[in-house]
Amino acid sequence: MKKQLELAEAKEAAVSYLTHHGMPQEHAGMVADHLIYATLAGHDFAGLSRLQPIAEMLKERGPGGSISTLRETPISALLDGANVNGYVTSVLAMDKAIALAKRSGVGVVGVSNSWFSGMLRYYVERAADADLIGMHAANSTARVAPLGGIDRLLGTNPLAFAFPSLSTPLVIDFSSASMMWGDVLYHQQIGRPLPEGRAVDAQGAPTIDPAAALSGAILAWGGARGSALSMIVQALGILGGSDPVIRDGGGRWGYFFMAIDPELLMPLQDFKKNIQSLQDQVENSRPVPDGAFVRVPGSAATRKVREGRARGWIEVDEPIYSAITRHCV
Amino acid sequence: MKKQLELAEAKEAAVSYLTHHGMPQEHAGMVADHLIYATLAGHDFAGLSRLQPIAEMLKERGPGGSISTLRETPISALLDGANVNGYVTSVLAMDKAIALAKRSGVGVVGVSNSWFSGMLRYYVERAADADLIGMHAANSTARVAPLGGIDRLLGTNPLAFAFPSLSTPLVIDFSSASMMWGDVLYHQQIGRPLPEGRAVDAQGAPTIDPAAALSGAILAWGGARGSALSMIVQALGILGGSDPVIRDGGGRWGYFFMAIDPELLMPLQDFKKNIQSLQDQVENSRPVPDGAFVRVPGSAATRKVREGRARGWIEVDEPIYSAITRHCV
Repeated sequence: MKKQLELAEAKEAAVSYLTHHGMPQEHAGMVADHLIYATLAGHDFAGLSRLQPIAEMLKERGPGGSISTLRETPISALLDGANVNGYVTSVLAMDKAIALAKRSGVGVVGVSNSWFSGMLRYYVERAADADLIGMHAANSTARVAPLGGIDRLLGTNPLAFAFPSLSTPLVIDFSSASMMWGDVLYHQQIGRPLPEGRAVDAQGAPTIDPAAALSGAILAWGGARGSALSMIVQALGILGGSDPVIRDGGGRWGYFFMAIDPELLMPLQDFKKNIQSLQDQVENSRPVPDGAFVRVPGSAATRKVREGRARGWIEVDEPIYSAITRHCV
Repeated sequence: MKKQLELAEAKEAAVSYLTHHGMPQEHAGMVADHLIYATLAGHDFAGLSRLQPIAEMLKERGPGGSISTLRETPISALLDGANVNGYVTSVLAMDKAIALAKRSGVGVVGVSNSWFSGMLRYYVERAADADLIGMHAANSTARVAPLGGIDRLLGTNPLAFAFPSLSTPLVIDFSSASMMWGDVLYHQQIGRPLPEGRAVDAQGAPTIDPAAALSGAILAWGGARGSALSMIVQALGILGGSDPVIRDGGGRWGYFFMAIDPELLMPLQDFKKNIQSLQDQVENSRPVPDGAFVRVPGSAATRKVREGRARGWIEVDEPIYSAITRHCV
């Protein structure tokens, strides 16, 4: 059963829950905004249902310290995340990149010493909302084997871009792994086999058993090219401050952010008009036989978030609702 | 039958062939260097065998005019390619991005009004050789349908990155289309059907007939994510100066180049050491059962080029050899 919550009410409940579990008030507001965004976007698994795992991580890792700037130029900054969660450090890093790009045309920002950061599109969309191009790559614990291998050497390595447009921005994010780690865990929890071709066991044999996959490796998505894309994301993560390969239970994660002002190369309005034209031409193109319409990647989530904000409320599962209002998800 | 050619001899023959067909001497040297690189890399189809199609394009489009800078800042430049081929404009654009990044930390460069540019890795590798990170995206004539659609709206949209390392740089490029346009043409020439699932005909029905595919559309590689990546590349191409969608037989292509100095975020040696460590850990990881070893994406081509240059000669097919030395490929 679903319960309706006013957005302000949902935020208040999430903030209250997070501060109750030791998160500083200011950080809790930023995390709550992200989780509500994800719920609005229709990504329930990345939404308010994340409150419990975040509380567990807070218990394990603590709330973190003071985020600081280790290195700065007019077009770049390197942040020490001080063991604060990635929801917070990523907003600060993207906003730093945005501020640099607004002043200097480009902002390149790295963050390490931080953990889980949710949906990448949330960050890059901030750049597009500021009339900038946003780019973000994140490297975390190695779960994925490169093509031709069976050892876990690559993160699930997501990549995100956002481009400003006349109406809604073009916002695209995806992982270069054939499956998310959390999704493998979820299959194990509900006792369901994995789809074929997504993982190998510890000896490198193909497996659909979630437990075997958890001790083995996930495969990169899309064969050689997905594996190559994952290497690119990992190298950008290294630039952001991550270890070359992040072993289980330790190591430094690294996030890379960039904002680019389209005005460097053309008038902003021309760029936005051209991105809009691309979006329009895709949406107005002929669908496959029996297809309803052609969708611009990422546009469904963008639309849902905007509609949800205009509407002013979200729906959450009753257990989540009663738990967050009782601080015990 | 293959013929051995000293590299200097091969370059002289290619330059002589190109100038005979109307290309300015200076441009011909740059194109020849690229084609020899591609031949050394083992990509014969992108190597000296391209001389004939380039000569045909020269006949059709002329040698082009004077490349000029339309817009410039300390971190960016927009070039008008003046209808000069992309082999030349892309070297100038990448080298401009490199020069800007050496001075300012970042270089963002766009080029439009140019045509075919060969292997993207050739350009980004120049950045890595200069101890910079190179990025390059290219949008050309629409041949590919977005996921869920059947109209040609996307270019074959290749993407390339290069990262400096202690030994050989990490250089990765690939196309976001399931098949290159030239490869469809090649299948038609030799009368061979396409692999399944790569193309649709003009009515949107799946086809393995090259002629039907040529009047229809190629599919994006890797489903939703490949199609999303293709949109990203196209949007970067738009930033580089391309039309939103480039229709057959006209329109402006757009190339986007960027160079980033890793020193913005960390000491160069630390960055190179970390990229080397990633390369080493991949190469030394366990291969799939029956696999010989795990390969770093792009490393085979990088190695072949370096070995070939040290060796000092290439092998070319006899017909290519005799044709280029007689100016009539």
